[in-house]
Amino acid sequence: MLIVQKYGGSSVADAAKIERVAGIIADTYHAGNEVVVVLSAQGDTTDDLIGKAREINPNPSKREMDVLLTVGEQISVALMAMQLEKMRLPVVSLTGWQIEMNTDSTYGAARIKSISTERIRRELDKNRIVLVAGFQGINKYGDVTTLGRGGSDTTAVAIAAVLGADKCQIYTDVDGIYTADPRKVPGAKKLSAITYDEMLELASLGSQVLHNRSVELAKRYHVDLEVLSSYERKPGTKVREVVKDVERMIISGVAKDADIARITVAGVPDRPGVAFRVFSAMSRAKINVDIILQSAGSDGTSDISFTVAEDDADAAKAALEAAAEAVGCDHIAVDRDVAKVSVVGAGMMNSSGMAVRMFEALANCHINIQMISSSEIKLSAVIAQSDADRAVQAVHEKYFGEG
Amino acid sequence: MLIVQKYGGSSVADAAKIERVAGIIADTYHAGNEVVVVLSAQGDTTDDLIGKAREINPNPSKREMDVLLTVGEQISVALMAMQLEKMRLPVVSLTGWQIEMNTDSTYGAARIKSISTERIRRELDKNRIVLVAGFQGINKYGDVTTLGRGGSDTTAVAIAAVLGADKCQIYTDVDGIYTADPRKVPGAKKLSAITYDEMLELASLGSQVLHNRSVELAKRYHVDLEVLSSYERKPGTKVREVVKDVERMIISGVAKDADIARITVAGVPDRPGVAFRVFSAMSRAKINVDIILQSAGSDGTSDISFTVAEDDADAAKAALEAAAEAVGCDHIAVDRDVAKVSVVGAGMMNSSGMAVRMFEALANCHINIQMISSSEIKLSAVIAQSDADRAVQAVHEKYFGEG
Repeated sequence: MLIVQKYGGSSVADAAKIERVAGIIADTYHAGNEVVVVLSAQGDTTDDLIGKAREINPNPSKREMDVLLTVGEQISVALMAMQLEKMRLPVVSLTGWQIEMNTDSTYGAARIKSISTERIRRELDKNRIVLVAGFQGINKYGDVTTLGRGGSDTTAVAIAAVLGADKCQIYTDVDGIYTADPRKVPGAKKLSAITYDEMLELASLGSQVLHNRSVELAKRYHVDLEVLSSYERKPGTKVREVVKDVERMIISGVAKDADIARITVAGVPDRPGVAFRVFSAMSRAKINVDIILQSAGSDGTSDISFTVAEDDADAAKAALEAAAEAVGCDHIAVDRDVAKVSVVGAGMMNSSGMAVRMFEALANCHINIQMISSSEIKLSAVIAQSDADRAVQAVHEKYFGEG
Repeated sequence: MLIVQKYGGSSVADAAKIERVAGIIADTYHAGNEVVVVLSAQGDTTDDLIGKAREINPNPSKREMDVLLTVGEQISVALMAMQLEKMRLPVVSLTGWQIEMNTDSTYGAARIKSISTERIRRELDKNRIVLVAGFQGINKYGDVTTLGRGGSDTTAVAIAAVLGADKCQIYTDVDGIYTADPRKVPGAKKLSAITYDEMLELASLGSQVLHNRSVELAKRYHVDLEVLSSYERKPGTKVREVVKDVERMIISGVAKDADIARITVAGVPDRPGVAFRVFSAMSRAKINVDIILQSAGSDGTSDISFTVAEDDADAAKAALEAAAEAVGCDHIAVDRDVAKVSVVGAGMMNSSGMAVRMFEALANCHINIQMISSSEIKLSAVIAQSDADRAVQAVHEKYFGEG
């Protein structure tokens, strides 16, 4: 089998951790597989480099920042190669430009355009373990770029896609995808499998294990993903197109996202075109809007509320203030003390009675629901942030029992 | 003018030093010059990286060591670019592979084969200051290499050669080339100019300012070199093909090399072919031999003595022991407590009475001379190491007066 593995920064943070990870790589190789390994920068390396840069220039160009940051993954692959050499394994390390990881020129958040399989394939044909520096690419000018958040996961999935790998294993410091955050919800259960779509909902809803971008890529190219622990040798969670019945739970998880803000445009005229103006202002400002609620008032005006990422709240308010004059509104309010609690599952809307359990759980806890949204595979409620952890536990217990 | 500058690791060791160096670069640019700057890794970066590697594998492959070490210069150029950006100067940083610094595949000590001027020229034409990571190249397999000791000086001279630069300035923590080590000889004088050949003698004789390899390259391609201080704005020492009369001193310096050992092959038969066998053994072991002395004994045997670099002494002895049986010899002795003191100057052998002053100075100090060698431009004496500093001072005073 051809297997692509990815190890995050905490998994290669020091010599002891590098040795442990090398053990997993060696076992995979000795089992007769072709192995490509994508590595992130060691633990604090990226933060240290950013610190050095900020000391010199608080606002450096993104091009030079990328030149600086890409050294982190290069250090990781060189050190891991040395560890595997000590174990007498044939190995070669490669950077982003060496595998021709071609990207656009959006320094700091580049998009992958193509990857050459030629160099990797040649090294695999020499029976070598191939180590690839994650997170980094090269643009048409021959300059280095970085892929931004989740970049190493994305590198691994993209390489798995172009090589037609049998699987792509994402090793991390948790051992799989859980029905809720296991640090906060004692009864959280590990899922043996989950679909891409469910994973996308969970990732975007605040479950931090896999980045959406890598899951989207995996979905598009049908890459079999697995999330596993770097520390314990046991099965993780598979992420696939279709999940076999035997592995299937109707609900795959409960997630919380506290990094949202609720914007209310209060007292707008209750006539056509108002919502259009509000949301085209958001669109022009390139701000993603999530849940929307429009409530009619009694005096011929209405309130429009919606949620945005908390980081976008100030920009959203500023954009609205500019648009408010054209629309006419009473005032604009921003509430950051909100959170979104969501239940995700492919069987969500098709199984009668599934949705109602969430409302029942929240009602039993006397938690007020501010906004609701639903899709084929999820149901979300916006509530006060102070209620969020309690809500996740109550909802989780309602669907999954006491664990 | 097109000026190539090189700054060593201590000159860019921290944010404050980077800022100071950026000031020199900015002034050079604002004076209307095209500026290419070659940088070494910051202060301790290389040692830190080597430490990380050794912790994992005491004997890593040189290929992976080069992958690891080349990040040092990449960090330097990125940080310097950020400093110059803060000063609102147009700047771009480039790595060894980006300028197509093509080398052979001797990882850790690669030789330059060619450099593309295309990228550097294009950036200069955009009026940018071009920062180049020193010490690093790329081989025909597309893998990174390092140039070994003095690699950043060599990078700077090579770039100056291919670009046809008007000058190549080597900024360092001393302010020029001195007639002797100024830390040890109080009367040492700074030279305003020196020829390539004199510099080569001084460099190989233990003056640590410029590496021979970069001087040889400068000589071959007629690159006008200048050694200057990163800390003080004043003229340094020019290194050229011909030195103008007004700048000329007959003697350019007195140097000491304590890192040598004297090997004596005692009691060899006094017949043809013996010296050949001894030195072909050295040649096969790839050991450079410096000063040779053959002394005839009274009993039909003779002693052959020669000096080698101290690091080669054990290997030389081992190689000789293998050869000794074929030759027949009494014993082999290694003396590490020796040093070579040399006087260098283009006028050395042509000016009557110049050479004799060295012997006079040593005789006045009662220092015994073990071996002598001379060339067109230098005169060297091997003496006991404990006498070396005293010898340098006495010889220097004899040629240059009290300062």
